Amino acid sequence: MNEIVSVEWLGAPPLTKADFEAAIRAVGTERYHDKHVFHKLLHGGKLDKGQVQAWALNRYCYQEAVPRKDAAFMSRVHDRELRREWIHRVHDHDGLGEEGGGLERWLVLTDGLGLSREYVASMRGALPATRFIVEAYVRFVVEQPLVVAVASSLTELFAPAIHRERIAGMLAHYDFVNDHTMAYFKRRLTQAPRDSEFALAYIKDNAHTRAEQEACIAAVRFKCDVLWAQLDVLHYAYVTPGIIAPGAFRPGEINE
Amino acid sequence: MNEIVSVEWLGAPPLTKADFEAAIRAVGTERYHDKHVFHKLLHGGKLDKGQVQAWALNRYCYQEAVPRKDAAFMSRVHDRELRREWIHRVHDHDGLGEEGGGLERWLVLTDGLGLSREYVASMRGALPATRFIVEAYVRFVVEQPLVVAVASSLTELFAPAIHRERIAGMLAHYDFVNDHTMAYFKRRLTQAPRDSEFALAYIKDNAHTRAEQEACIAAVRFKCDVLWAQLDVLHYAYVTPGIIAPGAFRPGEINE
Repeated sequence: MNEIVSVEWLGAPPLTKADFEAAIRAVGTERYHDKHVFHKLLHGGKLDKGQVQAWALNRYCYQEAVPRKDAAFMSRVHDRELRREWIHRVHDHDGLGEEGGGLERWLVLTDGLGLSREYVASMRGALPATRFIVEAYVRFVVEQPLVVAVASSLTELFAPAIHRERIAGMLAHYDFVNDHTMAYFKRRLTQAPRDSEFALAYIKDNAHTRAEQEACIAAVRFKCDVLWAQLDVLHYAYVTPGIIAPGAFRPGEINE
Repeated sequence: MNEIVSVEWLGAPPLTKADFEAAIRAVGTERYHDKHVFHKLLHGGKLDKGQVQAWALNRYCYQEAVPRKDAAFMSRVHDRELRREWIHRVHDHDGLGEEGGGLERWLVLTDGLGLSREYVASMRGALPATRFIVEAYVRFVVEQPLVVAVASSLTELFAPAIHRERIAGMLAHYDFVNDHTMAYFKRRLTQAPRDSEFALAYIKDNAHTRAEQEACIAAVRFKCDVLWAQLDVLHYAYVTPGIIAPGAFRPGEINE
């Protein structure tokens, strides 16, 4: 991933903070993954258990990448206060002390789907494409200017709506999920807004030029692509045409 | 820094765990920076206040790099339990919530030396060489195999002795330090042993081949070099010959 601060905007006047925020939000309206056909199938009860298992174990790769991308971000930050703020994202996913964290809650979900923890956490059943896509996100956060890296987290602005829809839809339609196994998404309903408020305020204060603002908007677009592409490869492998890459999870078979 | 796992040890039998630990400890005996002439001057009360100020504000760069190198390490770790263990190092330096952490305690020390926090934290008075040296440590942790990156933390095995000597020596000799300003080192007396025990056990369990063991030993040597080199450049600039790089802190002058 190359630098996405473009010369095309050099000299252009910066957007007002309100217009900047509106442009960020418009990206979600246009291409957040709640609009992907796979999510409509997932939330509408149209998938069988094997397909939900495939979704959950592939999505684990993304969950697993998130605290690493946050640590990668922190490794570049010289502002101690910003690191002290950002570290709670790692706590949220990895847990801290007695608290197991979001990855633990994700494994409760995959437990409930009858997948072995060792198999899920090894990621060896995930589609190779899934792993390539999520590592692109880690690299983005390593390589882009800090304000742009922060902006890439802003898909969280759009997350609570999809999580509410997912909780309601999956509980209504699938007998293999329940309140306990959906705990991950319930927790994110409160965590994501705190994080996205901070990140939105940060980029408004730290993207000074139009070029930086446009790079932030492009970062949200990039991140939507990361989320969307994960569903594309799932849909390809497990719905239509249903061609599963060698070595990847095969529903109903012995997966080791 | 290139990969330091060398082909020269391919096929050699691994050291026993006891011999491996002894080889690690021997590096400290040979080249830990407690043997550097600058430390002897510092602890023996032979420096003036300006020289102690120069030491403290340059060493701040190292302190500031440590939580970043720990975050960089975590960004590469797929083992959640290892991240959950490692994160307390970031807490120790950055603080967590109400706790200000080691960097805060370092600034208490520089406060006590009459340096402005803004000036110290900006690092603009540090010797350029100091910053190059400490960034080499961050890069090492980014680039080396994980077990080798862990090994590079093991200079902490040798730290409590130097900290005890420093606390006693500086309190005895300098009227510009006191119990309050030496709090950083007191805290490290308990933090460093916990960390070094964990890291030592980790490398014993995870460096399987002789080549990996030798790379771990080389990592401790590298890290001793990082610490030693920082004192070399300090001694050069502020003791003998006393040639201060352009822009760096000049004792007794107005530094902004």
